[in-house]
Amino acid sequence: MRLSRLFGNTLRELPSDIQLESHKLLLRAGMIRQLASGVYSYLPLGFRVLKKIEAIIREEMNKIDGQEILMPVIIPADLWKETNRYYEIGPELVRFKDRTGREMVLGMTHEEVVTDLARGELFSYKQLPFMLYQIQTKIRDEPRPRGGLIRVREFIMKDAYSFHRDFEDLDSYYPKVYQAYENIFRRCGLKAIAVEADPGMMGGSVSHEFMALVPSGEDTVVKCSHCDYAANMESASFGEIEYELDDKLQEVKKVQTIGKKTIEEVANFLGVPPSKTLKAVFYSNGKDVIFVIIRGDFEVNLTKLMNLLKEPELHLATEDELKRVGIVAGFASPIDLPENIKIVADRSIKWGNNFVAGANEVDYHLTGVNYPRDFKVDIIGDFAKPREGDPCPKCGKPLKIFKGIELGHIFKLGTKYSDAMNLEYQDEEGKKCKVVMGCYGIGLGRLMAAVVEQFHDKDGIIWPLSIAPYQVHLICLTPKDNKLADISEKIYQQLTNEDIEVLYDDRNEGAGVKFKDADLIGIPIRLVISYKSIAKGGVEFKLRENKKIEIIELDKIVEFVKERIKELSINYQ
Amino acid sequence: MRLSRLFGNTLRELPSDIQLESHKLLLRAGMIRQLASGVYSYLPLGFRVLKKIEAIIREEMNKIDGQEILMPVIIPADLWKETNRYYEIGPELVRFKDRTGREMVLGMTHEEVVTDLARGELFSYKQLPFMLYQIQTKIRDEPRPRGGLIRVREFIMKDAYSFHRDFEDLDSYYPKVYQAYENIFRRCGLKAIAVEADPGMMGGSVSHEFMALVPSGEDTVVKCSHCDYAANMESASFGEIEYELDDKLQEVKKVQTIGKKTIEEVANFLGVPPSKTLKAVFYSNGKDVIFVIIRGDFEVNLTKLMNLLKEPELHLATEDELKRVGIVAGFASPIDLPENIKIVADRSIKWGNNFVAGANEVDYHLTGVNYPRDFKVDIIGDFAKPREGDPCPKCGKPLKIFKGIELGHIFKLGTKYSDAMNLEYQDEEGKKCKVVMGCYGIGLGRLMAAVVEQFHDKDGIIWPLSIAPYQVHLICLTPKDNKLADISEKIYQQLTNEDIEVLYDDRNEGAGVKFKDADLIGIPIRLVISYKSIAKGGVEFKLRENKKIEIIELDKIVEFVKERIKELSINYQ
Repeated sequence: MRLSRLFGNTLRELPSDIQLESHKLLLRAGMIRQLASGVYSYLPLGFRVLKKIEAIIREEMNKIDGQEILMPVIIPADLWKETNRYYEIGPELVRFKDRTGREMVLGMTHEEVVTDLARGELFSYKQLPFMLYQIQTKIRDEPRPRGGLIRVREFIMKDAYSFHRDFEDLDSYYPKVYQAYENIFRRCGLKAIAVEADPGMMGGSVSHEFMALVPSGEDTVVKCSHCDYAANMESASFGEIEYELDDKLQEVKKVQTIGKKTIEEVANFLGVPPSKTLKAVFYSNGKDVIFVIIRGDFEVNLTKLMNLLKEPELHLATEDELKRVGIVAGFASPIDLPENIKIVADRSIKWGNNFVAGANEVDYHLTGVNYPRDFKVDIIGDFAKPREGDPCPKCGKPLKIFKGIELGHIFKLGTKYSDAMNLEYQDEEGKKCKVVMGCYGIGLGRLMAAVVEQFHDKDGIIWPLSIAPYQVHLICLTPKDNKLADISEKIYQQLTNEDIEVLYDDRNEGAGVKFKDADLIGIPIRLVISYKSIAKGGVEFKLRENKKIEIIELDKIVEFVKERIKELSINYQ
Repeated sequence: MRLSRLFGNTLRELPSDIQLESHKLLLRAGMIRQLASGVYSYLPLGFRVLKKIEAIIREEMNKIDGQEILMPVIIPADLWKETNRYYEIGPELVRFKDRTGREMVLGMTHEEVVTDLARGELFSYKQLPFMLYQIQTKIRDEPRPRGGLIRVREFIMKDAYSFHRDFEDLDSYYPKVYQAYENIFRRCGLKAIAVEADPGMMGGSVSHEFMALVPSGEDTVVKCSHCDYAANMESASFGEIEYELDDKLQEVKKVQTIGKKTIEEVANFLGVPPSKTLKAVFYSNGKDVIFVIIRGDFEVNLTKLMNLLKEPELHLATEDELKRVGIVAGFASPIDLPENIKIVADRSIKWGNNFVAGANEVDYHLTGVNYPRDFKVDIIGDFAKPREGDPCPKCGKPLKIFKGIELGHIFKLGTKYSDAMNLEYQDEEGKKCKVVMGCYGIGLGRLMAAVVEQFHDKDGIIWPLSIAPYQVHLICLTPKDNKLADISEKIYQQLTNEDIEVLYDDRNEGAGVKFKDADLIGIPIRLVISYKSIAKGGVEFKLRENKKIEIIELDKIVEFVKERIKELSINYQ
């Protein structure tokens, strides 16, 4: 492809509110353009990257016996009502009525459709197991689209669904998908790790997320410094920490704490560490207010709390909701709480004694508060977020905390969808049994952005060879000179004839512009033909990933490039 | 692929309301499944056909310098308001509000988005021309989805858009697309012809439709029996026909015609041919009633009439609308018509004299009506539909009429979108000029269905090799016999190792079921391994398209198949 004909400009300037490097670089390199908040077009260069990622994913899915299909974007709402997700999911699910008044939704995921498809075809155990997948457009009206391709409202997703006669069969298939996912990320050049995750709205039991660890990630990953334990913060746990108990239990005493509301303020004012305080946090399910108590130096993991309480929806209680039940925010106490309020405690309230807690009265706190002497709780559980250094739940060694981007998510769904939608097969004895399912997703655009987050420098993107838009960026420095143009043209043709993908900068632009664009676009191999290179005996060869320049003779350059491509490819097999 | 593992069953029975053969066969062969009216999933076999069509289209688009991109399904309504199509297009355009209340539409075509994209990148004449295309999901809420993949509400479309500095450049590019389209259809095995067409809602001047001629088509094609003239009925014309004039003009005479309303009834009753009558047809634009007059043996082409009158919307006037302006339906006359009604005549009223026309009075007609002696018209034009045998507008030889399926449509858009959305470039002198555009679409699913319409017999589909889901259908007749199974398995592996695509029927089913399924699925080459074939010395080789069976020795079969594939491929190059 001649750069002079390529659609999509490189940009030197961008609006200053763009934060993420991948967002900046994909825009600046002319790979994507925003159409609306969280809605992007892929320009030719970006589209080539997307297609290469797609090809890798397709290969790996086919290797584990995936059968590719294509399901629609527009889906009758009735199917989503069968599983109740029509009601459970909020405005992320786009709803509309068709011209006949029928309620429709835009597919944000396809469990319902694929289950419906399967129940139309499946009758015998002999047909099981099978796996179906598609690479298709999803619509999810995210509340806060951000970061370019990281969190969008329309995206291309590979979603796969496997169907099994029992959990044992799912258990034996699941590791194959896990391996395929590792292959996909490795072949795309990504450094990714798998972590335990919460199944969330998908339902099911076991699930794993694949994470690219990058400082800009919006997800938090908890990883053991020694063993293989790794989990998304949402589902992470940690072992019991060390703690000391005062020898003697104090009496409860009310102390004045004028204007001190936060844990830090109260602890400082009273001269105790935050670990000697109890923090009260109020949640509401829209109906009831729930009093949650946790040791002052921990934070509540909302997902784990929701799972513990089996509440599908919890939010921080509003001031109105608190007033209605007679609670004083900032000074709330587990002692003498109104009777109709459920008290839920994290196990950390047992890690200490003689705590400071609220007094249920403005500008007062209590000291010497002890559980269970002074207050009762309805439920005690484990929903504190682990902190850097807390003990690993598996081996006890210190945990580390990283930021990451979620690349993919695999789930053991179990029978959630086959129960709801009556997906059955007949076993050998003619007995009807529910199908056991797994589902497996990867967002292609986010994967692309994550690669850029991991592989860039101040000048631009550094594409892994396997998914680079082109393999070679050929620059003719002075194309107005016929001799240089002829040489470049010839090398362009020779490389292209060998099926090497070349982006050929044939533009009448200065050397500065051409080198800047080459660095920005980030194609792995750069060739430069200039007066200087010819004087030195040939073509300048340079990899995007380092600064080393070699001069290769003109009649050896094609073989040399082929050889280097072969070498580089090894990293992505 | 082993048929025993393939997802998607063949069906022997279907609901009786399914009319089109392609609809029946694609369902019965397990290629597609309906999710909702006009909304389909592609099962693995159908998806493979779709992908092969996609690959052919992509190759041909790349050959004419197309650059592949991907634009979104969800589009801000504002863009569609810029061109006014938001208001002009009815409920086919799906509209919804996103969670922030912003009006969005689902893309049914992408002129607005691509024009917006181009205006962000384009500044200089040096960047022109270029062509962008995508292969992407479109949503169009059709009033009457029908015929399986023929008329759907969600479909995969290849839409391409070209950008030019002037009409001359568009004129020189347009034939390349035309040729690419002919290549695409030929390579997919389709017999298709290009016809002149009306640009409709796309706007612009010249446009061509590519039609697959099949008796089940819902479009009508007018084609010269001698020269290359061909047009969609909507935009077809014809030359002046031969006619005779009576020597003497009669006087206008009122005759009683009790109960005779249609042209046939009146003509029969008065003993004249329909060509000696004038037919009155009333249209309304919602405001005014328009009196349209045409010779009694012709029909009005509404599209041409609308174009002649520059009326974007015309419908047959209702009885209420007629009464309101004082007209008697069935007896309306151009003579003494109320003054406020516009009279529009087809040129055919000049092809004869002494006509019978309405008398504007129930149960009466006039004879001896002559134009222009007896009535005036406001506009006279050419909007009669050609009939079989009418003269070709180019060469005068008889026209023929066919039914067809529209496969693709190419348009010279001109500056319609660049005017509305201000897409400009600077020319050599720094002058701002509007970009001239073309747009070019193909529906992939409809193409697939059209192939099935053209290539099937009573037993099933007969896929052209180029887009067949697999190249070879290998049947092992008695897989329970280890020897036969081993031979089959070996041949399956050998063929697969040679990159030949094999669907391998390894099921424990009877010969009848296996042969029926093979015919239904329609893969071009069938190989059968059975006791009989082995006894005869090898493998049965048969093409789906004929009945001839050959026995090929086991150790020659792979070479033989390769050779036959090479031969068959020649038809699709």
